[in-house]
Amino acid sequence: MAAWGERLAGVRGVLLDISGVLYDCGAGGGRAIAGSVEAVARLKQSHLKVRFCTNDSQKSRGKLVGLLRRLGFDISEDEVTSPAPATCQILKERGLRPHLLIHEGVRSEFDEIDTSNPNCVVIADAAEGFSYQNMNKAFQVLMELENPVLISLGKGRYYKETSGLVLDVGAYMKALEYACGIEAEVVGKPSPEFFKAALQAIGVEAHQAVMIGDDIVGDVGGAQRCGMRGLQVRTGKFRPSDEHHPEVKPDGYVDNLAEAVALLLQHAHK
Amino acid sequence: MAAWGERLAGVRGVLLDISGVLYDCGAGGGRAIAGSVEAVARLKQSHLKVRFCTNDSQKSRGKLVGLLRRLGFDISEDEVTSPAPATCQILKERGLRPHLLIHEGVRSEFDEIDTSNPNCVVIADAAEGFSYQNMNKAFQVLMELENPVLISLGKGRYYKETSGLVLDVGAYMKALEYACGIEAEVVGKPSPEFFKAALQAIGVEAHQAVMIGDDIVGDVGGAQRCGMRGLQVRTGKFRPSDEHHPEVKPDGYVDNLAEAVALLLQHAHK
Repeated sequence: MAAWGERLAGVRGVLLDISGVLYDCGAGGGRAIAGSVEAVARLKQSHLKVRFCTNDSQKSRGKLVGLLRRLGFDISEDEVTSPAPATCQILKERGLRPHLLIHEGVRSEFDEIDTSNPNCVVIADAAEGFSYQNMNKAFQVLMELENPVLISLGKGRYYKETSGLVLDVGAYMKALEYACGIEAEVVGKPSPEFFKAALQAIGVEAHQAVMIGDDIVGDVGGAQRCGMRGLQVRTGKFRPSDEHHPEVKPDGYVDNLAEAVALLLQHAHK
Repeated sequence: MAAWGERLAGVRGVLLDISGVLYDCGAGGGRAIAGSVEAVARLKQSHLKVRFCTNDSQKSRGKLVGLLRRLGFDISEDEVTSPAPATCQILKERGLRPHLLIHEGVRSEFDEIDTSNPNCVVIADAAEGFSYQNMNKAFQVLMELENPVLISLGKGRYYKETSGLVLDVGAYMKALEYACGIEAEVVGKPSPEFFKAALQAIGVEAHQAVMIGDDIVGDVGGAQRCGMRGLQVRTGKFRPSDEHHPEVKPDGYVDNLAEAVALLLQHAHK
């Protein structure tokens, strides 16, 4: 058992990344990571509060949860913090009408949003939707605005599909930022507001919480900057070079979610 | 006549950008900018040395020159400095075997390059070739290299087609840089080596030369950093906000190439 397990003392709440921790997405819906279905079940039977905190912006919460339930996970929509609903709230509050560069799978989250005569661009993980034509359209909308606003659902660099690593929304966000000479507003991890919303949902303070993710920067580094602890799993997009990251030092590394949960259940109550 | 015309005294050589200065590219080959065909002819009949210095990486020099000649321009292949031949020289010198993310129109420039078992990625203005699939392939090649090398043919943010502004290679270069955590090597403007190669071809020193372009940063700013003078034309991708650029102050603005040439012929000999 890892010596740093002691650092989990006093944890009351757990934020779980989904892609790369619970499952690897991909064709046919993806596949559960070995041991993760059981680990989630153990965690939810324990005294610890659990919240799923994802940057997945390719699927509506309904679709994501449906997919995970088919893979065997005990999860419901109201346990998930994801960027699309948070973005809709921001759009409404600020009277923004977005041009949407998003995946069809998440479009239903924006059903109630006015998209006429756009005064901003919202970009999410559009995957195949990141065509040259669609990128040009988003670029042209931004260039025609006096004060261009670009909202990005997460800024992940890449993630793992069952077929291999693929580009995430952050890469395309950077392309538009550079072309337009602007800086995007990021909704999702590692934005502190996003982590705080997830913690509020389970009534846990940052210093009592741990984030478990496969993204050394977005999950682990982001959580630590908010005062949480952060564990990196060696599944999903994890790469051996992450263990020598120049800036982010996780509170611990675990082979997978199953090991993380075993450590938590041993040490968190202390 | 512009008061700053005096600043053109002593000019012996002229570097001309092509897209946005000579013509606007687009469907059906694009169209010449009014007055530019005659302006090039006047310039070449004068005592001034002329070199075409383009970041166009979508077409081979042969195709580009053929297109311009059909539009009426007096131009030949050996008068053009463009990034593809410069890149091929670098690849050969350093024993690099590229994965090519390029437009079909420029592929012939790379005919003699070994692309087996790639140990670098070369990215050019691939236009429609910037699909999610092709971007992922380039990303994956880079991520599998121990020392990833990304060479970008220019780093333009956007350019003008007859249909409007479209993203240039620089935006996609930034996407790959961010995703891989690396910095690309740029071959083309505003790289000093590239400008120097163009000046050498006409035997003119930087302080005796002026660059005329529509890109405030890549053409004008890049040339000035090399000790040349730089004029911006109000054609092509020019936008009124360029006249208040926070960093680059051109030696002068002209409405188009015709005005630039008129000023040059009046003042350069002084």
